[in-house]
Amino acid sequence: MKASEIAAAIGGELNGNDVEIFACAGLEEARKGDLSFCKDSKHVKLVEGTAASAVLLPRDWQGGAPCPVISVDDPDRACIEAAKLLAPPEPLRPAGIHPTAVVSPKAKIGSGVHIGAFTVIEAGSSIGDGAVVEAQVFIGEGCAVGESTHIYPQVTLREGTKVGRGCIIHCGVRLGGDGYGFTTKRRDDGSVEIEKIPQLGIVEIGDGVEIGSNTTIDRARIGRTYIGPMTKIDNLVQVGHNVKIKGYSGLIAQSGIAGSTEIGMGCLIWAQAGVSGHLKIADGVQVGPQAGVSQSLDGSVKYVIGTPAESMKEFGGRLLLPKAVSKLKGRLKDIEHSEGPK
Amino acid sequence: MKASEIAAAIGGELNGNDVEIFACAGLEEARKGDLSFCKDSKHVKLVEGTAASAVLLPRDWQGGAPCPVISVDDPDRACIEAAKLLAPPEPLRPAGIHPTAVVSPKAKIGSGVHIGAFTVIEAGSSIGDGAVVEAQVFIGEGCAVGESTHIYPQVTLREGTKVGRGCIIHCGVRLGGDGYGFTTKRRDDGSVEIEKIPQLGIVEIGDGVEIGSNTTIDRARIGRTYIGPMTKIDNLVQVGHNVKIKGYSGLIAQSGIAGSTEIGMGCLIWAQAGVSGHLKIADGVQVGPQAGVSQSLDGSVKYVIGTPAESMKEFGGRLLLPKAVSKLKGRLKDIEHSEGPK
Amino acid sequence: MKASEIAAAIGGELNGNDVEIFACAGLEEARKGDLSFCKDSKHVKLVEGTAASAVLLPRDWQGGAPCPVISVDDPDRACIEAAKLLAPPEPLRPAGIHPTAVVSPKAKIGSGVHIGAFTVIEAGSSIGDGAVVEAQVFIGEGCAVGESTHIYPQVTLREGTKVGRGCIIHCGVRLGGDGYGFTTKRRDDGSVEIEKIPQLGIVEIGDGVEIGSNTTIDRARIGRTYIGPMTKIDNLVQVGHNVKIKGYSGLIAQSGIAGSTEIGMGCLIWAQAGVSGHLKIADGVQVGPQAGVSQSLDGSVKYVIGTPAESMKEFGGRLLLPKAVSKLKGRLKDIEHSEGPK
Repeated sequence: MKASEIAAAIGGELNGNDVEIFACAGLEEARKGDLSFCKDSKHVKLVEGTAASAVLLPRDWQGGAPCPVISVDDPDRACIEAAKLLAPPEPLRPAGIHPTAVVSPKAKIGSGVHIGAFTVIEAGSSIGDGAVVEAQVFIGEGCAVGESTHIYPQVTLREGTKVGRGCIIHCGVRLGGDGYGFTTKRRDDGSVEIEKIPQLGIVEIGDGVEIGSNTTIDRARIGRTYIGPMTKIDNLVQVGHNVKIKGYSGLIAQSGIAGSTEIGMGCLIWAQAGVSGHLKIADGVQVGPQAGVSQSLDGSVKYVIGTPAESMKEFGGRLLLPKAVSKLKGRLKDIEHSEGPK
Repeated sequence: MKASEIAAAIGGELNGNDVEIFACAGLEEARKGDLSFCKDSKHVKLVEGTAASAVLLPRDWQGGAPCPVISVDDPDRACIEAAKLLAPPEPLRPAGIHPTAVVSPKAKIGSGVHIGAFTVIEAGSSIGDGAVVEAQVFIGEGCAVGESTHIYPQVTLREGTKVGRGCIIHCGVRLGGDGYGFTTKRRDDGSVEIEKIPQLGIVEIGDGVEIGSNTTIDRARIGRTYIGPMTKIDNLVQVGHNVKIKGYSGLIAQSGIAGSTEIGMGCLIWAQAGVSGHLKIADGVQVGPQAGVSQSLDGSVKYVIGTPAESMKEFGGRLLLPKAVSKLKGRLKDIEHSEGPK
Repeated sequence: MKASEIAAAIGGELNGNDVEIFACAGLEEARKGDLSFCKDSKHVKLVEGTAASAVLLPRDWQGGAPCPVISVDDPDRACIEAAKLLAPPEPLRPAGIHPTAVVSPKAKIGSGVHIGAFTVIEAGSSIGDGAVVEAQVFIGEGCAVGESTHIYPQVTLREGTKVGRGCIIHCGVRLGGDGYGFTTKRRDDGSVEIEKIPQLGIVEIGDGVEIGSNTTIDRARIGRTYIGPMTKIDNLVQVGHNVKIKGYSGLIAQSGIAGSTEIGMGCLIWAQAGVSGHLKIADGVQVGPQAGVSQSLDGSVKYVIGTPAESMKEFGGRLLLPKAVSKLKGRLKDIEHSEGPK
């Protein structure tokens, strides 16, 4: 796309050659063919050193630029607009069932549904109007997928899983696995017996939920593992059986919620954090990165961090312990010395 | 299913309308059509507030209930029985090879085996009698799957992987990947050379092992990565090359065992814990959640926690350090003050 | 393979019966049919107790052996050579497109390319000469896979992903997912609004990169998420949107790099470590296992550990705090006692 076309589309003014632009990129990573952006005169050096073919700058930019400039009111916003123009269109997923897909005659497929190559949909399942189920997906018996939900390739829904409307389920997500449900008994002779607890419940996903790549959500032992509406789950997250997430919460990458724990509305569980089983986390609580929560949180503390998780104040105090101890040593030495030889 | 039918089947007594029941659920999450349960008069309020259509209660229940009641001896147990009645039957996986499956003529398929749609089984592999290999599975050359083992959709077994009898392998499990095996050399000019170490061994899984969704177990560099009998592995667990797990152990979600480490009999590695490479963990040792084990454990301490992992006593002492330091400060102040001005 | 054949091939000398050997294994794990090895007289007991059918020993070995011995100069090296002889040949992936694969007529397939069963390659994608794309892979629109790259089964490349030459992508890898990109606003009435940020960029993987099973790498919001040449990524790793890894770095299992962070040349991120977003990690820095990095690292410290990450010296001091506090207590008690009753 010509720089002049981008300028025209986003209400900017081109100064310099009308170069060809293929993509957007940050100042440092930009290469030939990229459009970059800078809103702030603090970054004059980065602008001067960029390899971009053109750059979006504020209209009152004082510094120079080593390439054509598109002057705009708000370079950040303009870059998003330009990126939308430059991004290849979303792949078309037109209504229809790919001839290779294996769809049970006992499944109910809504209108305008796309079903991709090599996808399996078993008996008793229903796919809502306008849903997209991409290639190589497995949807087991008795599942329900809501209207306009988008399931990316290589997702598996074990039997009975319910997914709401307008959800986005990314590649490799596993819904409805058995998870870890065993009883362990030690026999009189000291040997160990491990027995599987049947996992009789399901997974139910509310409307507007997004689930990231390779995340796993286990079916309930009895009843439902429930992910409330508008919850956003990142990649490689583990959600155990019978967990309830009320809704409007975020679970960041590689975090884990153990069995039967309840997460309130609007919570945020940061990356690599873990919440133990059978706890209640109050609405709006945030669990910091790599934190380990082993007790219920009633919301009196809004942000916890550390293992076991505590308030920022407590955690900060703990971090300062080496200094505190060092000071104590100094004061102790003073006293010991002041007492003179004995 | 009618409440009366459930009551009859589990030896309970129905008091109230003969409502229709579809599933079981906890008191707080239950909705219309659910059967809930309560064993304990402590939870009278929850029973009174439940939206369940019926509730299982002890025969000597003193409180009320907002819905029909099925009186039973043991509500917990009764609920599991009811859940079994209400759960949809396990999907049938009858003997036979789906016409879309690509099974090598050089593979050996036992009797009564189910092979699902789009599954690939390569030359030299054998599938034991009564095994279920669901849809979209990949089984590479020279693999062996034992009798009655159940492999869920979208599992991959790289060449040479051996899986025992009566195992359960959940969706997205990766057995026999190369893992991380490289040598790094710094050249005289300072540049770095990274070379791949060929991974010539295999993965061998014992009888009765269960492996959770999206877990990865790497092939040995030489010899075998070995998961002993009855070991139960949760979701998103990483097991490195040449790890040996004797058997009857549990690895909870998102834990990781680095290369060449040996885990004894009956160990439990809790969620998000990590065990470094080339260590030996004695029989029966438990590694707490998020713990990081960097030294072998001889079993003299049965439970370790923290990073680096230590005993509960040591860890507990560490947690109390801020208080200990605060007390020291106080005592020091007393001494400093008692010494008067100098 | 006969022990004598192995001896001949690796320049060793067989003493004892010419047994049949099927595989290599360590002394303790070896069974009948295995060839084991020992270089060091420290392990005489292990050699004496091995169940291996033959063992590689140094020519000057003083101890005994319970089985035939192949005497060699360097048993370690000899074992790798023997393992190469014994390992089943890599599965053949001959040039050609499996008849079940769904390859868009608008995709460009190089010469000598292997495409496995049930693989989908969409319009506008190109596969370089000699590349292997195994079974059940999904390659979306406009992707590029470089020459001689090997993609194992059940990998997904979302639209626009670029993979370099000579890369190895293991089973279950997800390239180009949306990751976590949302804005959260609190409305005047206290309710929360969550909006998806369109992810308009791509993932670009340099030459010679290896990516382990079930690892996820997110597409950029704008521009590229970039994994530089020769970077080696282990299993279950998370790489967020717009991350840049210069090259020649290693990311060990279950580690995670949050959005927009830059990792220099030759860095090593150990298992289960996390690096927060928008940071810069200097060339050659190592982040220890389970560490949590929340600030940029300029390279003045070459190895960091702990959460938040600090130098080994600081971390070591922190570990010794209980002892330090205990000593202070003792000194304080001495002073208090020496002051006598007041």
